[in-house]
Amino acid sequence: MSKKQNKEGLNVKKQENFSEWYTQVLEKAEVVDLRYNVKGFEVIRPWGAMIIEIMFKLYEEELKKQGHKPVIFPTLIPEENFKKESSHVKGFTPEVFWLQKTQGDNKLALRPTSETAFYQMYALWIRSHRDLPLKLYQRANIFRYDTKATRPLIRAREFHWIEAHNCFATKKQAESQVQEDIGMTETIMHQKFGIYFLAMKRPKWDKFAGAEYTICSDVLMPDGKFIQQPSTHLLGQHFSKAFNVKFKDESGKEDYVWQTCYGPGISRMLASVISVHGDDDGLIMPFCISPVQVIIIPIFNKENKNKILKEAEKINEKIKSFGLKTEIDAGEKRPGEKYHEWELKGVPFRLEIGERELKEKKLTLFTRDTKTKENIQIKNLSEIKKLGQEFDERLKIKADKFIKGKIINCETKQKIKDTIKNKKIARINFCSVDRHGEKCAEFIEKELGAEVRGVLANKREKAKGKCVICGKTAKEIVYVGRGY
Amino acid sequence: MSKKQNKEGLNVKKQENFSEWYTQVLEKAEVVDLRYNVKGFEVIRPWGAMIIEIMFKLYEEELKKQGHKPVIFPTLIPEENFKKESSHVKGFTPEVFWLQKTQGDNKLALRPTSETAFYQMYALWIRSHRDLPLKLYQRANIFRYDTKATRPLIRAREFHWIEAHNCFATKKQAESQVQEDIGMTETIMHQKFGIYFLAMKRPKWDKFAGAEYTICSDVLMPDGKFIQQPSTHLLGQHFSKAFNVKFKDESGKEDYVWQTCYGPGISRMLASVISVHGDDDGLIMPFCISPVQVIIIPIFNKENKNKILKEAEKINEKIKSFGLKTEIDAGEKRPGEKYHEWELKGVPFRLEIGERELKEKKLTLFTRDTKTKENIQIKNLSEIKKLGQEFDERLKIKADKFIKGKIINCETKQKIKDTIKNKKIARINFCSVDRHGEKCAEFIEKELGAEVRGVLANKREKAKGKCVICGKTAKEIVYVGRGY
Repeated sequence: MSKKQNKEGLNVKKQENFSEWYTQVLEKAEVVDLRYNVKGFEVIRPWGAMIIEIMFKLYEEELKKQGHKPVIFPTLIPEENFKKESSHVKGFTPEVFWLQKTQGDNKLALRPTSETAFYQMYALWIRSHRDLPLKLYQRANIFRYDTKATRPLIRAREFHWIEAHNCFATKKQAESQVQEDIGMTETIMHQKFGIYFLAMKRPKWDKFAGAEYTICSDVLMPDGKFIQQPSTHLLGQHFSKAFNVKFKDESGKEDYVWQTCYGPGISRMLASVISVHGDDDGLIMPFCISPVQVIIIPIFNKENKNKILKEAEKINEKIKSFGLKTEIDAGEKRPGEKYHEWELKGVPFRLEIGERELKEKKLTLFTRDTKTKENIQIKNLSEIKKLGQEFDERLKIKADKFIKGKIINCETKQKIKDTIKNKKIARINFCSVDRHGEKCAEFIEKELGAEVRGVLANKREKAKGKCVICGKTAKEIVYVGRGY
Repeated sequence: MSKKQNKEGLNVKKQENFSEWYTQVLEKAEVVDLRYNVKGFEVIRPWGAMIIEIMFKLYEEELKKQGHKPVIFPTLIPEENFKKESSHVKGFTPEVFWLQKTQGDNKLALRPTSETAFYQMYALWIRSHRDLPLKLYQRANIFRYDTKATRPLIRAREFHWIEAHNCFATKKQAESQVQEDIGMTETIMHQKFGIYFLAMKRPKWDKFAGAEYTICSDVLMPDGKFIQQPSTHLLGQHFSKAFNVKFKDESGKEDYVWQTCYGPGISRMLASVISVHGDDDGLIMPFCISPVQVIIIPIFNKENKNKILKEAEKINEKIKSFGLKTEIDAGEKRPGEKYHEWELKGVPFRLEIGERELKEKKLTLFTRDTKTKENIQIKNLSEIKKLGQEFDERLKIKADKFIKGKIINCETKQKIKDTIKNKKIARINFCSVDRHGEKCAEFIEKELGAEVRGVLANKREKAKGKCVICGKTAKEIVYVGRGY
């Protein structure tokens, strides 16, 4: 976009046209540029790249804390690897980018996910129960030739994620890893990034290709649609049997390992952060992931420019010494323009430093989410750290509230239809999330324009009564909503 | 490799068979696994991945310090982009992996480098002198279908690097960026990683495809061959003209920007770190990039196991509190086996904690490079930080010394031949590094088995006399050696 556009700010309200708001904020806050000349591929500009870098860092730290180690696998996977797990190859083949043959007869794919790359190596690395648990992850770019309409950060054909691939001696250990994964989504995506989610165990027909079951974190976007965030899969022994990943237990008995995998999509998570927290003035970045936490705007004229800039530099160093990310915007633009640009970028705090502020030894502090201005004494600048935590807490509480009152118990098809139309989530009695319920799910998709997202994964809800669709005895309570 | 192999350690001396030593140390220290089923593609195991992660971090911090910002570009580049700069397309086409056509008529490549992806966007982003300098970098995986024999980390078909792409208003600014780039190689690769290099301005026939000139950092490997480490290129206005990257100066006059690019290959740099510092017992990791800086080995029997482990945990926490990376190896193996494994992995320091050590309140400290054991009092453990700096300083001095006496002035072809045979570098009078000298370079390559690597880039050396090859007046002093 041209600099001129940028100055103009957003010309659409988030509530009135979320889709247009989203595209505009990505462009005008310089998060993403959509003009790259390959369809579905985007350029992530410095502001977006810096945020993604911090998000990766926080996620990787948490993975390490939970006993994972990093690894780097090739991007290319031979077709023969895919073919080893039959439901996996069926699920992913339509979305794969293939290379022109260069290396003999091996047909090579750009990884859409890396189970089939990792597990042939796991078969070589794992021998005994002493090699377990094996918990490895990689930070990677992956490729899916999604045939649906692409959307920046949400449904791009190349995206940036973490994939963790774990092996255990028992099913019980693997299942507790699945819970640990949901816990990580809670710790990082919800507690840190402020993104509320429903942990949904997907119906059988919608699980990951090759898994026993899949638990996704569904985030409700401002337009009332669900976006799927990190999912964790109990792979069971499907892949370990296909790739011959065996271990000897203490008694010397051989068995296949039990596996899980977990995939936080960092670029996609950024889409939720932007969508959930932003407002009509642009982004609102959580303090913990903003590349600039405090922007300092010096207010000067020709006469006092040097003096003011010198003081701004002192303030800058002082705030940096508290471990905060801060920057001075010393450019030639007018202060008002600078205010506007940094609000668009969502920087949590702005400090204004001018002649008056220096005289009174207190600065003007602007807070992005509340849009309030207050005075802060120079000697109290270390308080910004605490204010930053409060900032993130406010964002989280506000985001949590968004889903309140949006989950509607529906006893009839018409009520489901109305609920979906009102951009809400229908909670219904449902026959079964085994394959027996697939027909009812198809009915919901075709006739009511929504999807059965699954049953709550971290709370057992007991169904009473009959399936709203087919009238048979309901075995489950499921959540129904539109999806991206 | 199996655990069994691992225990056996290296069975070859570095000096006797460097090539075999290198392969063994990569496998046995679990840096890389070469059994991935696509030729030229390797799996980087946790120990290697953790080192690479730290190397990236140090490099990226330095780039940011020098005013660069990160960006993330697509991996796929359309053929039409390559074709815009004629020498670039000629240079890279033979090495490109192409995708099967999926998206209309666009023939897509896996990036072998990203000039042609970046600069079409630069044409959109740069308008005025106020947008300059533009200094962006990305951390990326790139792909080159190298037809030479592949070698792990050194010549893999996918590798991991940083590429910085900068734009300036004047040629002078661009040239000073090239010097800044050499400075970064010095600051990080030499001062931190301890890898000595010659900054070589390449002959005209050997410059980067599309550059005015190329300066590479040539590192001498233990087998007497040069490996090319980070190179920096003055691209001039070749690409800005091809991609129409223009700016308006203060007077409103339009001109093409001046460009540079710089490419530190992190996985390849790890190859040098391993090769230069390692010894017959395995890796020796510089303290500043070792994922574990201090390994704690508890020495216990059944009776005192709990007590010793508890004390080890205390020591571990204490050392962590100094900001050091430390770990306890509490496994069931015998201490001797553990010593051996961590020496193989190159961990700088080992602390042994047993009954005797606790009684005397001093631990046994083993230092990897000198293989010395000494006592350290528990109250003095913070000294390890200083010892770590000294460790790195020793590695650097030792590596620096390796090239001493290896640069031989050669006045005859025979002497060049002998010098190369002795795994040394010939310094010779040479007619010209312009295209006029290409024939002499070809002679050197075919008849003497070596390459003209270029002239010193950071020191002007004046040639006197005649070209050793053709006898014409020598314009330059060049360095000749074998290359990877």
